[in-house]
Amino acid sequence: MLFVDINCDLGESFGAYQLGNDAEIMKFITSANIACGFHAGDSKTMHNTIDLACKYNVAIGAHPGFPDLNGFGRREMKLTEREIYDLMIYQIGALQGFVKAAGTTLHHVKPHGALYNMAAKDKNIAGAIALAVKAVAPEAIVYALAGSELILEAGAAGLITANEVFADRTYEPDLSLTPRSHPGAVIQDEDAMIRQVLKMVKAGVVPTKNHKEIKIQADTICIHGDHIRSLYFAERLNEELVKEEVTVTKTGDFIHKIR
Amino acid sequence: MLFVDINCDLGESFGAYQLGNDAEIMKFITSANIACGFHAGDSKTMHNTIDLACKYNVAIGAHPGFPDLNGFGRREMKLTEREIYDLMIYQIGALQGFVKAAGTTLHHVKPHGALYNMAAKDKNIAGAIALAVKAVAPEAIVYALAGSELILEAGAAGLITANEVFADRTYEPDLSLTPRSHPGAVIQDEDAMIRQVLKMVKAGVVPTKNHKEIKIQADTICIHGDHIRSLYFAERLNEELVKEEVTVTKTGDFIHKIR
Amino acid sequence: MLFVDINCDLGESFGAYQLGNDAEIMKFITSANIACGFHAGDSKTMHNTIDLACKYNVAIGAHPGFPDLNGFGRREMKLTEREIYDLMIYQIGALQGFVKAAGTTLHHVKPHGALYNMAAKDKNIAGAIALAVKAVAPEAIVYALAGSELILEAGAAGLITANEVFADRTYEPDLSLTPRSHPGAVIQDEDAMIRQVLKMVKAGVVPTKNHKEIKIQADTICIHGDHIRSLYFAERLNEELVKEEVTVTKTGDFIHKIR
Amino acid sequence: MLFVDINCDLGESFGAYQLGNDAEIMKFITSANIACGFHAGDSKTMHNTIDLACKYNVAIGAHPGFPDLNGFGRREMKLTEREIYDLMIYQIGALQGFVKAAGTTLHHVKPHGALYNMAAKDKNIAGAIALAVKAVAPEAIVYALAGSELILEAGAAGLITANEVFADRTYEPDLSLTPRSHPGAVIQDEDAMIRQVLKMVKAGVVPTKNHKEIKIQADTICIHGDHIRSLYFAERLNEELVKEEVTVTKTGDFIHKIR
Repeated sequence: MLFVDINCDLGESFGAYQLGNDAEIMKFITSANIACGFHAGDSKTMHNTIDLACKYNVAIGAHPGFPDLNGFGRREMKLTEREIYDLMIYQIGALQGFVKAAGTTLHHVKPHGALYNMAAKDKNIAGAIALAVKAVAPEAIVYALAGSELILEAGAAGLITANEVFADRTYEPDLSLTPRSHPGAVIQDEDAMIRQVLKMVKAGVVPTKNHKEIKIQADTICIHGDHIRSLYFAERLNEELVKEEVTVTKTGDFIHKIR
Repeated sequence: MLFVDINCDLGESFGAYQLGNDAEIMKFITSANIACGFHAGDSKTMHNTIDLACKYNVAIGAHPGFPDLNGFGRREMKLTEREIYDLMIYQIGALQGFVKAAGTTLHHVKPHGALYNMAAKDKNIAGAIALAVKAVAPEAIVYALAGSELILEAGAAGLITANEVFADRTYEPDLSLTPRSHPGAVIQDEDAMIRQVLKMVKAGVVPTKNHKEIKIQADTICIHGDHIRSLYFAERLNEELVKEEVTVTKTGDFIHKIR
Repeated sequence: MLFVDINCDLGESFGAYQLGNDAEIMKFITSANIACGFHAGDSKTMHNTIDLACKYNVAIGAHPGFPDLNGFGRREMKLTEREIYDLMIYQIGALQGFVKAAGTTLHHVKPHGALYNMAAKDKNIAGAIALAVKAVAPEAIVYALAGSELILEAGAAGLITANEVFADRTYEPDLSLTPRSHPGAVIQDEDAMIRQVLKMVKAGVVPTKNHKEIKIQADTICIHGDHIRSLYFAERLNEELVKEEVTVTKTGDFIHKIR
Repeated sequence: MLFVDINCDLGESFGAYQLGNDAEIMKFITSANIACGFHAGDSKTMHNTIDLACKYNVAIGAHPGFPDLNGFGRREMKLTEREIYDLMIYQIGALQGFVKAAGTTLHHVKPHGALYNMAAKDKNIAGAIALAVKAVAPEAIVYALAGSELILEAGAAGLITANEVFADRTYEPDLSLTPRSHPGAVIQDEDAMIRQVLKMVKAGVVPTKNHKEIKIQADTICIHGDHIRSLYFAERLNEELVKEEVTVTKTGDFIHKIR
């Protein structure tokens, strides 16, 4: 029996600034990564997004990022490991506050943007993040790029991990994502995106350059929620997975079983 | 047998900006109110201050304030009750993150600055704060101005409360503090400060204008930690209380017993 | 011969957060009030919005507000006059930087949100704002609520002023706007909005409660740019004014002449 | 005849946070680099610091940095050239606002912290900074690490430049500063610091590893103002320079002459 989770970054509004179609995308995902007020989101948005996730029975995750609202957490910042540890504790703790107030539990943690990318490659940053999750939310599942340093470090820290894959990005032979600056880095065709997902989920492989397939573990698929087109894709992705007898459910329902 | 707690606002440093003598004042207090990153403090400072409190066996409290770092949370902001509820949850949650990572527990919550003052007088603001504490830290003791609206609302919400008194401020007949702009609002003489504390703690009264004494409940005494003089006063206050056979200990050790 | 200016708040995007239809509304206005990075806007947005204003030959104004991005500058903050003076200088100066880099000039200054409303009623706040404009941009025209304290104080400081009127708000007998919380405070019907504007511009009066008309000076009309409907209204307003032989142009083209 | 300027980073306080001994160090410097509110400083501090500089007849410079108050602008951020251009315009413009309000002029611009270091090595970042200064303050002198990319780019843009040297840092053969992490990177002995300054100013050379001397242009010496010891050093440095018949004065008094 095959399982997969579909996750999306949500709760990215800030004050008067509205971003995303959170109420719509909630219908098609099983894990919500909620911004924690540093790169996006604020206390009101966190509260509202958790209410929405509870309504749609979507698993709640913390989505901490760099303290760079203006850059949306997408710009690299050179922080010490201790600084990264502390900003993780702060943001996860803040979200846990709203989770507790809502009478529910924190299901997972996924770093955002530049922090996500740096943690995928840098063992020390990955280690700092793993230690922080271990300290403040040891039951939470760490979502990280499939096969990345963060998967390794979180696993070494005794945390449950979920390998994240992308429907619309091409992969390099080392399982890193082809940089967006390269031609063909982003898959535009929806059929091709669906094919890539099914291959990763069902066969456990992903095609890389010169069509060579490499092994990949696909526990959770990252989708976007900001465009109307994303909503259609999210709906179709669910349909195609069900058609192929893949159960779409939150990682907490199956990860611990298959390890 | 008489008990009293001594509390101080701590953890107010931010990045390269150092404020207060936290490591020194810890020796003379039983409750630390730790800033949560909105009006002062940051993730690194919260981490360090909790470590320090653990070392000195000082009870750890959250000290949330308005989102106004430049004004140090001392400027009134007109927020909705929902906005206040949400900023309380966020800040308390963030501190709870570090508390959990340190393997200890959150002992109390005390609003800061303008939020403290507004909550003392405004029933709606007080109610929003009480609801937030109830939701995110129901075991925490609410520190508020003796006899204030926040004491009433927190009590009504089923929370344990601690009446806070000031050694260096004069009181109005309604137990509000004489505004700082008024002459004589701040007591400068240390002997007079000690006398006022002992009167409040031992006799349960405080002198107001025209020397009329009114009843006051003194569970915790607020002291400052930013000047050298404050350190001397803190040390002497402890000595004088002990001399008068008052046990100085965290409110959690006695509040629930006398209610 | 009759003249009037049409102004709109613009440049309110921040980082990844897009707000408003700046490029569209530019076609229908003569004055742009550009956010300066405290309540909205950032350095990139200021740069872009000035480029856009230059392209459409729209007069450039600074639109400073309270340091409250999360509240969009709409929440009252209790600041000292000196604090208000300083935040005005800072924000106007920052915008002047981009104005100079673009090789153009600053045409006007209009405070934003809660600061605008407080300056309309509070003589001291109005005075602080007037002094700041006088110090940093003495040639700039001050846009303020028609007949407000800020009009008086800016005039007393020797600054040129433009009385701002609203198409979609009803007025109280003292020329203040009926608070939004009151029924009928906001005019929904577009025909009624056009009628109110024409009455103010052509007859110099505005109806208040019980249909009594009072005198009002209408130098500039404030419109919104955030909804599609606003764009249609802006276009129609221009047409109706032209039809009535009112010249729509920036205040700098006519204010100094009629004073 | 020999000239040199002595500069110091000032105006780094923020709200309730006081940093440095600005009023003391002003007596011993000829150029003040004033923080502009991104990495340090705020509108009140900028106002106060300019008043102080006027009082002591010290040349006023803008000291823009990364938008990272918590990291004091010392942490590298990966920004685009356009982002750097815009944040320079914004910060210099804001300081120019206060400069204009004080009836004085902007004398120089010196980037801060990580931005300073990155601009010393990265031609593109240096170019973006040079373009921004050219656009908003073409008369201002650019202070940059002696012989750095920013000196080259600012010169190429037609700006006047001042080569900055350090009394307490050792130099590499390419004129870069020995990284602080290396042993011996910071000169602790005051006599050695004075000797290094005199050598740079009088002989135009600086010793590097294995005692080989290389050419260096010393227009302005950077000193610190945060410790009491810094104040003594600043006073002594002035005395030693005078003793050696070096005139200590702002770069604007001599730079344009010797180029």
